[in-house]
Amino acid sequence: MLKTNLEAYLAGFLDADGSIYVQAKPNPTYRYGFQVAPYIVLFQSAKDRINFEKLCSRIGLGYMRERNDGILEYIIGKADSIKKFIALVKPFLFLKRKQADLLLRILKAKEIIKNKLDFRKLLDLVDSFRELNYSKKRKIRLTP
Amino acid sequence: MLKTNLEAYLAGFLDADGSIYVQAKPNPTYRYGFQVAPYIVLFQSAKDRINFEKLCSRIGLGYMRERNDGILEYIIGKADSIKKFIALVKPFLFLKRKQADLLLRILKAKEIIKNKLDFRKLLDLVDSFRELNYSKKRKIRLTP
Repeated sequence: MLKTNLEAYLAGFLDADGSIYVQAKPNPTYRYGFQVAPYIVLFQSAKDRINFEKLCSRIGLGYMRERNDGILEYIIGKADSIKKFIALVKPFLFLKRKQADLLLRILKAKEIIKNKLDFRKLLDLVDSFRELNYSKKRKIRLTP
Repeated sequence: MLKTNLEAYLAGFLDADGSIYVQAKPNPTYRYGFQVAPYIVLFQSAKDRINFEKLCSRIGLGYMRERNDGILEYIIGKADSIKKFIALVKPFLFLKRKQADLLLRILKAKEIIKNKLDFRKLLDLVDSFRELNYSKKRKIRLTP
């Protein structure tokens, strides 16, 4: 597969059975009381493990975990890796382009936090994911 | 999106959240007592309806239906349309290539049925889908 074809393939995969989301988890060890954790996840049944692992090893930006219900999750959670992955697939995204853009804005907002107001703005961005991912399995734990 | 990119995208979509399968449904009005019905289906939550409908209108080979649980299914069921769709995506498939090949064999076997033995061979091919899609939501109704 050519490089651009792989990127288009991954965009289709992400649109169909992937997730772009961000969690704001209460955590008193963090300066402003919350850990803001963005994720991109690709899902697949564990029965396709071998080929799915091959595919994900070509991405090389995340790690695999297996859920109790037999679903494999390929999780991209590091900021730099998320940026790289979005840069690859964004030109070809059809359904999740808004989520990709919003996640990039959140990563940027995270980098420039200087005070509580900046952090509040970040949480507002996290909140706005709610509308985009509305009706998904409540992965966004919201903020006080 | 370029044509080959769209095809790679659709391959990713089908691999991630699509289904390639065939049903052999008991039906006494058919000559050999069964209707053999192959399908390719793409799934998506109805909350993404507008973009998903746009995407599927670019495919132009099937029809949309909405399930009671709020999932949209884009169903490609005509033999010629299935052949066209497989021809487009097959070079880029990663997880469902075997299913695509087997479905093409089944379509071919269907076309050349002359007698009960030919039909028995067709049902054997339908049976062999069982192994490929094993653990999927039993969509393959099997044969006596």
